[in-house]
Amino acid sequence: MTRQMHLIGFLASGTWDESGGWRHPATDSRILESPMWEGLARTLEDARFDAAFFADAFVWYGDASVERGGLNYMLDPLPLAVNVLRATTHLGVGVTYSTTFYEPFGIARTLGTVDYLSGGRFAWNVVTSTFDAEARRFGMEKMPGRAERYDRAEEVVEACVRLWESFPADALVLDKEGGQFIDPSRLRPFEYHGKHVSTEGPLTVPASPQGGPVIMQAGASERGRQFAARLGEVIFTLSHSVHEMQSYYSDVKRRVVEAGRAPEDCKIIAGIDVTVAETEQIARDKQAYADELLDDDVAIEWTSSSTGANLRALPPDARLESLQGTHEGSTSYLQRLEAIQRDVGRPLTIREASREFCLRGTPRIVGDPEQVADQLQEMFEAEAADGFMLGGTVMPGSLESFARLVVPVLQKRGLFRTEYPGTTLRETLRGRAREPLAALPARS
Amino acid sequence: MTRQMHLIGFLASGTWDESGGWRHPATDSRILESPMWEGLARTLEDARFDAAFFADAFVWYGDASVERGGLNYMLDPLPLAVNVLRATTHLGVGVTYSTTFYEPFGIARTLGTVDYLSGGRFAWNVVTSTFDAEARRFGMEKMPGRAERYDRAEEVVEACVRLWESFPADALVLDKEGGQFIDPSRLRPFEYHGKHVSTEGPLTVPASPQGGPVIMQAGASERGRQFAARLGEVIFTLSHSVHEMQSYYSDVKRRVVEAGRAPEDCKIIAGIDVTVAETEQIARDKQAYADELLDDDVAIEWTSSSTGANLRALPPDARLESLQGTHEGSTSYLQRLEAIQRDVGRPLTIREASREFCLRGTPRIVGDPEQVADQLQEMFEAEAADGFMLGGTVMPGSLESFARLVVPVLQKRGLFRTEYPGTTLRETLRGRAREPLAALPARS
Repeated sequence: MTRQMHLIGFLASGTWDESGGWRHPATDSRILESPMWEGLARTLEDARFDAAFFADAFVWYGDASVERGGLNYMLDPLPLAVNVLRATTHLGVGVTYSTTFYEPFGIARTLGTVDYLSGGRFAWNVVTSTFDAEARRFGMEKMPGRAERYDRAEEVVEACVRLWESFPADALVLDKEGGQFIDPSRLRPFEYHGKHVSTEGPLTVPASPQGGPVIMQAGASERGRQFAARLGEVIFTLSHSVHEMQSYYSDVKRRVVEAGRAPEDCKIIAGIDVTVAETEQIARDKQAYADELLDDDVAIEWTSSSTGANLRALPPDARLESLQGTHEGSTSYLQRLEAIQRDVGRPLTIREASREFCLRGTPRIVGDPEQVADQLQEMFEAEAADGFMLGGTVMPGSLESFARLVVPVLQKRGLFRTEYPGTTLRETLRGRAREPLAALPARS
Repeated sequence: MTRQMHLIGFLASGTWDESGGWRHPATDSRILESPMWEGLARTLEDARFDAAFFADAFVWYGDASVERGGLNYMLDPLPLAVNVLRATTHLGVGVTYSTTFYEPFGIARTLGTVDYLSGGRFAWNVVTSTFDAEARRFGMEKMPGRAERYDRAEEVVEACVRLWESFPADALVLDKEGGQFIDPSRLRPFEYHGKHVSTEGPLTVPASPQGGPVIMQAGASERGRQFAARLGEVIFTLSHSVHEMQSYYSDVKRRVVEAGRAPEDCKIIAGIDVTVAETEQIARDKQAYADELLDDDVAIEWTSSSTGANLRALPPDARLESLQGTHEGSTSYLQRLEAIQRDVGRPLTIREASREFCLRGTPRIVGDPEQVADQLQEMFEAEAADGFMLGGTVMPGSLESFARLVVPVLQKRGLFRTEYPGTTLRETLRGRAREPLAALPARS
């Protein structure tokens, strides 16, 4: 079978990003009510998307973001995901859940239950969390360092997979006549003793038809790539050049093979914001309208928080160059801002550079349906990605437009499925029937 | 307004109890599928029940229970509760969640989200967990002692209440024109530093119309009663004599008042198993049929586990007296078994005593609708309880029979509501509109 692309819808419970899209006249204000998310999920399922994906964090990014509406995560995405799964029959749903603040038994039981109830359509986006403010909310003084976070994350995921394998579905006998409820010989009790976490099985939750939630992850660093290669089944990446994407793609696939796995068992999914309309001109006008919604204070705060540079210490109309010498530590943030200035081709103020930094945070495609499909096809065929995670400004209109305008073009070109291959997310991702969870490759 | 009783349906995701009811021909075997629970919830809502309640634990009770089907909790009840809430509009749903294994911020965010999405119909049954096997699953060697568990539980609940109060609903402005998303002056940031847990607010989840989940709890010990009096809004109790129930009732209500709360703000709910049918004779025959389903091995194992006496060390047909001198530590278990023997009025074997111990674990009422209503009315009017948590053997038939046969009698007598007073669980419990969460009474 020809290689086909994978499509995932990017959602976030609250605002979707820092763009101010919540102020768009077409954006639905019922962002905290389940029916809006369920309706969007049905649209994605009609279009045969692989999955909907909920990003998350435990804190807001700053005062301007709170007051003016930057990226503000609000509800715990897990209960929303339960509702979305109940409202659909084939769509996968991924939820972000931190390995730093939860114990593996709790994660495995809750996420395993969601996976079981959905008939095997759930995915776990493994994150280690980022901010000291998140750590303080969970009783820690500050975040552990990256290496320690990843060490713990690997143990947590290993322990969860063992828990999901500990109660095979066929161990549940439920024989009323014979009086056997569970066949204990089919259970797989175990003890797990790691450096950071310990647990025991069996789990009380039987395995779903896909054998346990799909593991999603975003790993750009060396350590992140190792983790992804060993345990990830869907890897998110964000990159501004096709060349960079190709290099990341081939590097991760090589590591996946070195870890003893088939390269197609780890899908690399690139984040893209798409604005599509009937004509290129309409799409460009829509994008220009949406770009105006970004709030200056939010942009400067977000750029400060993302880069580590305190841009708020300077007047917004100061030239970007004034930053030189005012920052401490790494200079990579300045390089990114200077790269933006070079792209734009003229000197930028703090305000302008911050706006561009935000608006170009995720690579974007703007055009008519054929143009958008052309660009996705080019990246897909160049092995820059196995598929795309699609975001947008208007909630839920951006994803609906993509589903209705671009998906039919991709399907006509044979680049995207017209039917689901089965009922579980793992089948959807791999295009074939269920197989047992692979034994975990050993740690390098 | 006349005092009216409260009714809560007892559910457990897996089997409901140790009775072997899963083998009953009328029991639904789809115990792990959401639609069965949603259907039962709709029946309870039609009958104007206050709430459905999910019990839970993280481990199974023993080998016989697993294989023969004693009380085996399986799915995490939280996702089931989300589905049940989505399928209903007025029914409250309570879920058991342990304060020993989770951090308050995670609890507050997840449970606060479920409460918000349900429009204020969620309740949290606060438990501290019991078994060392549960502790090992969460990376501890064994359970902390009761005092330490309760100290931590009080801190966790306090911190959660603070988190639920930290984001009042009116702080979410969502003014597209003016560009204000949240009014930060209405948020209530705070730091909480306890001996066991620390956290910070605000929570990212706005308060539901009832201001945060209702706190449920079961506290029989001195420490448990103190906790209940200070923080509990629904208190579960299990007792075999009306006199004992009355004494517990008046003691807890006195403590509630001493803690500065109104006595009616803490409802005392007694666990009862009801078997009701068209005639008393049919009900008795049904009960006798159901009692036969209890497995001997499960009964002996359950009685051992509950009492702490290793009954499995003796032949099942040995006289109960043979136990004398074979046990260590407390003798209260023997007293309970001997009380059962006295009740039955002849010497019992280990097998017989264990069966009686299980079948009389929860007080039971067997009869026609008027007889059942009479007994409930008597307990209610004697101030033995403010209402009842109803269990049964047949899933979901026992609760459906109660809803269809007994509730109309209670309604006709003016003892039970015919309409919900509002839309939130706190309104249903207190019979009046929402009020702000009371400031927490100080710890004694």
